Amino acid sequence: MNINKIAIIGLGLIGGSFALALKQSGFRGEITGIGRSEENLLRAREKKMIDSFSTDHADGVQNADLVILSSPIGQFEDIVNNMKNNLKTGAIVTDVGSVKTSIVKKLDAIMPEGVSFVGAHPIAGKECSGIDASTADLFRNAKCIITPSSRSADHAIDEVIRIWESAGAVILHMSPEEHDMIFAAVSHLPHVIAYATVNTIMEVNPNILHFGGTGLKDTSRIALSPADLWRDICAFNKDDVLQVLKKFSSSISHMIDLVDTSDWSGLEKEFKRAQEARKLIASD
Amino acid sequence: MNINKIAIIGLGLIGGSFALALKQSGFRGEITGIGRSEENLLRAREKKMIDSFSTDHADGVQNADLVILSSPIGQFEDIVNNMKNNLKTGAIVTDVGSVKTSIVKKLDAIMPEGVSFVGAHPIAGKECSGIDASTADLFRNAKCIITPSSRSADHAIDEVIRIWESAGAVILHMSPEEHDMIFAAVSHLPHVIAYATVNTIMEVNPNILHFGGTGLKDTSRIALSPADLWRDICAFNKDDVLQVLKKFSSSISHMIDLVDTSDWSGLEKEFKRAQEARKLIASD
Repeated sequence: MNINKIAIIGLGLIGGSFALALKQSGFRGEITGIGRSEENLLRAREKKMIDSFSTDHADGVQNADLVILSSPIGQFEDIVNNMKNNLKTGAIVTDVGSVKTSIVKKLDAIMPEGVSFVGAHPIAGKECSGIDASTADLFRNAKCIITPSSRSADHAIDEVIRIWESAGAVILHMSPEEHDMIFAAVSHLPHVIAYATVNTIMEVNPNILHFGGTGLKDTSRIALSPADLWRDICAFNKDDVLQVLKKFSSSISHMIDLVDTSDWSGLEKEFKRAQEARKLIASD
Repeated sequence: MNINKIAIIGLGLIGGSFALALKQSGFRGEITGIGRSEENLLRAREKKMIDSFSTDHADGVQNADLVILSSPIGQFEDIVNNMKNNLKTGAIVTDVGSVKTSIVKKLDAIMPEGVSFVGAHPIAGKECSGIDASTADLFRNAKCIITPSSRSADHAIDEVIRIWESAGAVILHMSPEEHDMIFAAVSHLPHVIAYATVNTIMEVNPNILHFGGTGLKDTSRIALSPADLWRDICAFNKDDVLQVLKKFSSSISHMIDLVDTSDWSGLEKEFKRAQEARKLIASD
């Protein structure tokens, strides 16, 4: 299959970087940007990230061979409902959402006949957002999780893999359910924790946050992430997020017990266990 | 007062960097390193961080005008008991410990007549430790909290301030109690949280830690910190650590309630509050 036109819905950090990566990889077809802000789209065209644009979803996706949803996940269903009658037969729809099970279920159910949806989640991001933070190498060596469903056509899965590989990503396959439990733990949990950490410090004393060293800066950096985006991720992955948050709450209660009973060797053992595990992930 | 000889007890990251900073600031006196590992001390002398060394505390502090305790805080009391009879009259003892109230109380009680103790805490560090991680600019523009007690002589306070300023630090004054509550919140809490985060993820699935992106890497980096060091910090600042851990536990319980009851606007409000607060601390 030849991909001649790609429509990117939502030109923020991820959508913008995807456009830049496509251009850099030598993609010669048309890249259309679709978004609400004409100013943003004009800037993207000026920067030659995109070739054309539209503020109307249904209009923008016409003749697109591949449509990538990179707006906040809370908008996916409405966007697909708005545009689906204008998708051409054989079109492939994919996304970059941080949650998969509920998204795949919702979007599979509303995709028109002859259009295939393939869920994807590139593991890339920064605490800064917006088109101006975009870079062509954001996905270079980043993992991209592909979560096809039984309704995803094989050729569509292959194309989505190919396009992410051309952007420099390393492809991993998972079921949507497996993806959501893993990312509830390694991504959604740390975000909720970072927000709760900052709020706790502010409750102790609203004027002390700046006393923190690099440790606090590092642990709280993701509390700069957009609140509405992470609200939606928690909502769309509610059951898994709830489960890992409860596990974490038990771990904190255990730490409190150890401190309260002055069980210092028990506390050291917990710290040591975490330290050893943390050493397993790539050097910093 | 003229400082001609400085004894640094414990040549790790902080002690080593302090020696390098003194040399770079033009200090012409003698710097003696005191530690348990002769190999470490020999390497320090080879690198010209120190001029002389001893593996014996009582021996090393002879004739020292300033003695700085930069070994783990759990060892301070024994070290001072071992060396105190060899301290010269007029000597100044200071430390770099992350906890102040209990340290100041313990050390003030055992300091010999004519020797002044001035508690200090430079806010610098990395997750890596050891003499080889030392750099002359570790304290450049870093805050250094000075927590004198009623028993600290004025001239001793002035000298400790002067020496840290010469190392590039910015001096702040606090009571030991004020210091400990603030750092329980901005430093000790984030460390316990980082350890608990890693342990929770390992409990969900011991093979998923590497799926985390830069967010998880940032939030868990301080879980690489030495377990015995942080055990001691929790032990020496037990009451404050317990208090902030309980506040944090309530904040997590509140997050769990909001997710459990699908109160998404309430959750967004909590996230937003943290995001706004985090923006207040210096750019990353």
